[in-house]
Amino acid sequence: MATPAPTTDRTVRTAPGPAAVPVDPAVHPAWLPDAALAPLGRRQVAVVVPDGVADALADPVVRTVRAEVTAATAAHGGAAPERADDADVALVLDPGAAGRLGGPEAFEVARAAGRVTVTAGTGAGLLHGFFHLVRGGEPALAGDGDGAVERHAPATTLRMLDHWDNVAVHPAMGQVERGYAGGSIFYADGEVRADLTRVAQYARLLAAAGVNRVAINNVNVHAREARLLTDDLPEVARIAAAFRPYGIRTHLSVSWASPVVLGGLTTSDPLDEDVRAWWRAAAARVWDAIEDFGGFVVKADSEGQPGPFAYGRSHADGANMLAEAVAPHGGLVHWRAFVYNHTQDWRDRGTDRARAAYDHFVPHDGEFADNVVVQVKHGPIDFQVREPVSPTFAAMPRTRLALELQVTQEYTGQQRHAVYLGRPWSQVLGFRFWGDGSPTVADVVAGRGPGADGGTGDGGAGGGAGREGGVAAVSNVGDDRFWTGHPLAQANLYAFGRLAWDPALDPADLLDEWAGLTFPGADRRVREALHAILDESWETYEMYTAPLGVGFMVRPHHHYGPDVDGYEYTPWGTYHFADRDGIGVDRTRATGTGYTGQYPAPWRDVYEDLETCPDELLLFFHHVPYTHVLRSGSTVAQHVYDTRFAGLERVLRTVEAWQAVADLVDPDVAERVTERLAEQVRSATEWRDVLNTYFWRKSGIPDAKGREIY
Amino acid sequence: MATPAPTTDRTVRTAPGPAAVPVDPAVHPAWLPDAALAPLGRRQVAVVVPDGVADALADPVVRTVRAEVTAATAAHGGAAPERADDADVALVLDPGAAGRLGGPEAFEVARAAGRVTVTAGTGAGLLHGFFHLVRGGEPALAGDGDGAVERHAPATTLRMLDHWDNVAVHPAMGQVERGYAGGSIFYADGEVRADLTRVAQYARLLAAAGVNRVAINNVNVHAREARLLTDDLPEVARIAAAFRPYGIRTHLSVSWASPVVLGGLTTSDPLDEDVRAWWRAAAARVWDAIEDFGGFVVKADSEGQPGPFAYGRSHADGANMLAEAVAPHGGLVHWRAFVYNHTQDWRDRGTDRARAAYDHFVPHDGEFADNVVVQVKHGPIDFQVREPVSPTFAAMPRTRLALELQVTQEYTGQQRHAVYLGRPWSQVLGFRFWGDGSPTVADVVAGRGPGADGGTGDGGAGGGAGREGGVAAVSNVGDDRFWTGHPLAQANLYAFGRLAWDPALDPADLLDEWAGLTFPGADRRVREALHAILDESWETYEMYTAPLGVGFMVRPHHHYGPDVDGYEYTPWGTYHFADRDGIGVDRTRATGTGYTGQYPAPWRDVYEDLETCPDELLLFFHHVPYTHVLRSGSTVAQHVYDTRFAGLERVLRTVEAWQAVADLVDPDVAERVTERLAEQVRSATEWRDVLNTYFWRKSGIPDAKGREIY
Repeated sequence: MATPAPTTDRTVRTAPGPAAVPVDPAVHPAWLPDAALAPLGRRQVAVVVPDGVADALADPVVRTVRAEVTAATAAHGGAAPERADDADVALVLDPGAAGRLGGPEAFEVARAAGRVTVTAGTGAGLLHGFFHLVRGGEPALAGDGDGAVERHAPATTLRMLDHWDNVAVHPAMGQVERGYAGGSIFYADGEVRADLTRVAQYARLLAAAGVNRVAINNVNVHAREARLLTDDLPEVARIAAAFRPYGIRTHLSVSWASPVVLGGLTTSDPLDEDVRAWWRAAAARVWDAIEDFGGFVVKADSEGQPGPFAYGRSHADGANMLAEAVAPHGGLVHWRAFVYNHTQDWRDRGTDRARAAYDHFVPHDGEFADNVVVQVKHGPIDFQVREPVSPTFAAMPRTRLALELQVTQEYTGQQRHAVYLGRPWSQVLGFRFWGDGSPTVADVVAGRGPGADGGTGDGGAGGGAGREGGVAAVSNVGDDRFWTGHPLAQANLYAFGRLAWDPALDPADLLDEWAGLTFPGADRRVREALHAILDESWETYEMYTAPLGVGFMVRPHHHYGPDVDGYEYTPWGTYHFADRDGIGVDRTRATGTGYTGQYPAPWRDVYEDLETCPDELLLFFHHVPYTHVLRSGSTVAQHVYDTRFAGLERVLRTVEAWQAVADLVDPDVAERVTERLAEQVRSATEWRDVLNTYFWRKSGIPDAKGREIY
Repeated sequence: MATPAPTTDRTVRTAPGPAAVPVDPAVHPAWLPDAALAPLGRRQVAVVVPDGVADALADPVVRTVRAEVTAATAAHGGAAPERADDADVALVLDPGAAGRLGGPEAFEVARAAGRVTVTAGTGAGLLHGFFHLVRGGEPALAGDGDGAVERHAPATTLRMLDHWDNVAVHPAMGQVERGYAGGSIFYADGEVRADLTRVAQYARLLAAAGVNRVAINNVNVHAREARLLTDDLPEVARIAAAFRPYGIRTHLSVSWASPVVLGGLTTSDPLDEDVRAWWRAAAARVWDAIEDFGGFVVKADSEGQPGPFAYGRSHADGANMLAEAVAPHGGLVHWRAFVYNHTQDWRDRGTDRARAAYDHFVPHDGEFADNVVVQVKHGPIDFQVREPVSPTFAAMPRTRLALELQVTQEYTGQQRHAVYLGRPWSQVLGFRFWGDGSPTVADVVAGRGPGADGGTGDGGAGGGAGREGGVAAVSNVGDDRFWTGHPLAQANLYAFGRLAWDPALDPADLLDEWAGLTFPGADRRVREALHAILDESWETYEMYTAPLGVGFMVRPHHHYGPDVDGYEYTPWGTYHFADRDGIGVDRTRATGTGYTGQYPAPWRDVYEDLETCPDELLLFFHHVPYTHVLRSGSTVAQHVYDTRFAGLERVLRTVEAWQAVADLVDPDVAERVTERLAEQVRSATEWRDVLNTYFWRKSGIPDAKGREIY
């Protein structure tokens, strides 16, 4: 680790790389504006490929690195010499180094002899090293080091974005389900887009943030989308070809019912030999068309999607059948654990949606095939503003588990509210189920949880790679010119990629990194304002929306804006049981649904006990009177009033912070952010007033400070 | 009046009529099954047309009467002799009689000399007379009378159905807005249907019930539908041609913004001469294509539709401009008074949607042109289960006012619940604003209200015809094989037509009449069961849904099923203000919105006073504690519980009543009704439990009878 990689005895090859991706001037460059590449582009940068490795330049990612270097140096006055000796920066491909470095995407950085040298074993590693330097900017490029070597490897090899994009516009859900940034970058007019320029641009942005897999269609697979698996394979191959140069593999969501819907069979029974044969053949066709295809994502027996239950089979039966079909090709099956009863009876307080993933999946721990990843939402319900971490992560040591996050802001402001999600994600990734010093959720999904080696893990170079499930998230990107509707929502996409690579990164640092790239050379005040606006924006959003761990006080269907009783009497679940005396869901073992018992100690006891349960999750675990005194010293009712008023105040200060710097950024960014902030103020006011009024009318407890409630 | 019309000195012409409308066997015949025509068809029926009237047989309605007679007698063993002397039944056209009889649609019936003779001045009158005999069946055809003559004339000449059908399927509202019976009978695949057979069948059904005008497209006129006025005129003419043989005139809903949307003008300002010229030319083209076109229906400045407010003009300015364009052609403008602020602030208790129609329109009484009909919903809000009658009817004596009802069951069970609306309509029509003995709403819309002769009414043969506005209703018909989704909802369509013709008819008698026609020859128990199911079904529906005059406790958007707070915090209006102590909207003059002051005495005082306000409207007019004792002796809270439990009980008895006779009707009818009743039970249970739970949780008052509340 102490020795810099040798760089001088290699010949630079000069095969031309692909042209740099042309950037539509109407599309915002996000965190890769030209200027972000200036520190690197001003230098002499060599891409060094070993002479004896004939295939090196066949790797499209190596060609990408070369093209990036060529373009950046051409644009900013540097050059791309052939030899490392002539370079300020050398990017060195060393195929033998992958194992030593910690996996194919790893790289190391050495600073010595006036030169920064990045060494990687693969094109992907080299590309990540390249973007590492870009992110680091001027300070990272100073070559005067002491010869010490930094080594970088991702925490998990599976860092995935899921797109809930429909090929055909869905009558109820639109083109992008839960999308708040326009149409799909993949599809238009019921087909894969002819022009995939934006997909290539997207791939570049993702690679720079650390994402390496993308599922390109909605997990709710409708009839049109089902055909991506068959008729549309040449089109899917075009998308995969747009991702490939940036080291990103393509996955498809598939319909569990494909053998019936597409294959004309009469059954989808996973134990039926015809069904198994159909899937084997389907998989073979996919990999014939796309050699580096990633695998299938499946939402089965969930919210009306078909699944193995119809045939009396388990989720393990269903997943393993698909796993068998994709295994010969090195493919994965991402099987979502988002399974619950969405036709429950609100009258029945014994039914608890929070219990569902655990109850459905934990009994099958150890039954899933090696290439099945069970993908678990971060909380036990559904991406609410505040949920406890799903106990399923702690209960399936013999299963590859992926953490599923939601970058698209379905329940967190729908990209009309500025809400930076780096902090809650960081908290989830760092959550320790078994107390201080125990493994984190990030460890679990990296295959390093307790008992992870009790399975069939390979214990190889990737650490827990054999048992890892990685991190997945629902993308927030559409064909909006800012990619994400709200320009500041780009920070969430960026932070997701970076946290997936390294969960230990500090969310505030990531914000700083993102701001530096996105607004290069901007006045110091811009960066300060972005921190002021975003650092605690999640807490702000929580303050004016969901109090004390109560979720789903949103308008049904579209999930925007307040409707306190909106889901209270529906089959989708019941979330607060508010009456004139109190509120909350009793999920204790003693008197409630028993959900607390799904946690290991210490949390099973911390959450169970009203005295130790954290305030922010109080109403998730307990039903209490409005007069209950929180650990903070306030009562529940007064907390509702205080946080609603304070939440709006914080939004107003956010607006002031932006107004002070809006003139210092591009006018189009300034305008879009200003417009979104106006809506955030309107909506936060509505949330404040509706929730305050609801609780005042119901509890009869006046605000101690006498503020206006309706 | 005592002299039967002479019939013997006329020659029967034998020009062939149109073929009878072919009936698709898959389409239910509603109240005109073949068997319903048997009593007439078994007889000798002459259609007698005066020799000297050359044009008589050019009248398509006369040809229709002849064709109906020919078909019925052929089918049932009777005959159609040329001379009245040879007939049991004579249908005599006497062009000179229209004035004497009371208008062009009037007819008289004489029974003497073993013969029933119907005399009318026009084909339309003859057709109504024909269907009068059909409806009367065997008893009406006995010719042995004493020579006394019955005379029949409609209460109003304007008896209209409005279709909220879209040409193109609307992404949110579907093909038929608030339609619960499938697609449109007029449109499919974004065009007028090539095959208008069902429109002709529909015309026949409407004529038999008494309707004589139909507006064929949604009052929310989207871009595609706007073009019905221009590009699609030949297609509209085809629809008009399908209605014409049954004496029904066609109207179009038009977009107020047509001069801009269709005409390429930059304004729709009603005082702009180019705009006026555009509308004059548009009207001329319409009447060129459809000589008997009825006129335009307009929803302006309402729920986002464009209107004159944008130009600082009044509704009178807007309506009169259109009136000027259609006047040369004898056309009408139906201008809807459904204008209110749909972006109101729920925090502001001073805004009262109930006031809106009156506040907007009454100041303009007397300003509307003679051929403008201001169309007013029956209640001040929006077709709720129970509303007081709109005070606007009492306040515009110098304006032609139409009563707008809703046959489609938007807020009354959406044709999944069996709810017969004859009773509430009858109550509205018979409501007397000025106390006992004063004119009814039916009188007002017939142009016979107080002060009606103070206008420019012609005082001619039609009575108030010069000032009449008539009756209009939103149709409940779609391309469903039973026309109305729920087969029993046919009764509503039938009753609407009959009450429009004669508001004094008894709803229970109409139900009997409808049942006799629809289930001819059925066991006596069927008719008894239908009465048991439908007679008080509206009251039953009210019992399990909206208590004491509170409206809008429905799920937003689709308006089906309970959501007590669904509209409580929305911009569409606020309807109950429930808190832990009480509920209701204070609309008094003393302490509320002042809405009671829109009524003349005695109602302004009856509603104002908590002691005299009828229970069923209590919460519409007053905010009271849950412990308030009703005139019935029960408290508000106990009334909620009692009526919810009793309402479901009544639904269960409805199911029993149907089960007892289901085997006695056609299996397909039995099956559909049974299926709908199952949904009604499910939904009524949900209403019961959600409302009981909501009020129990909020009030804390237990059910005195200790029944289960959640």
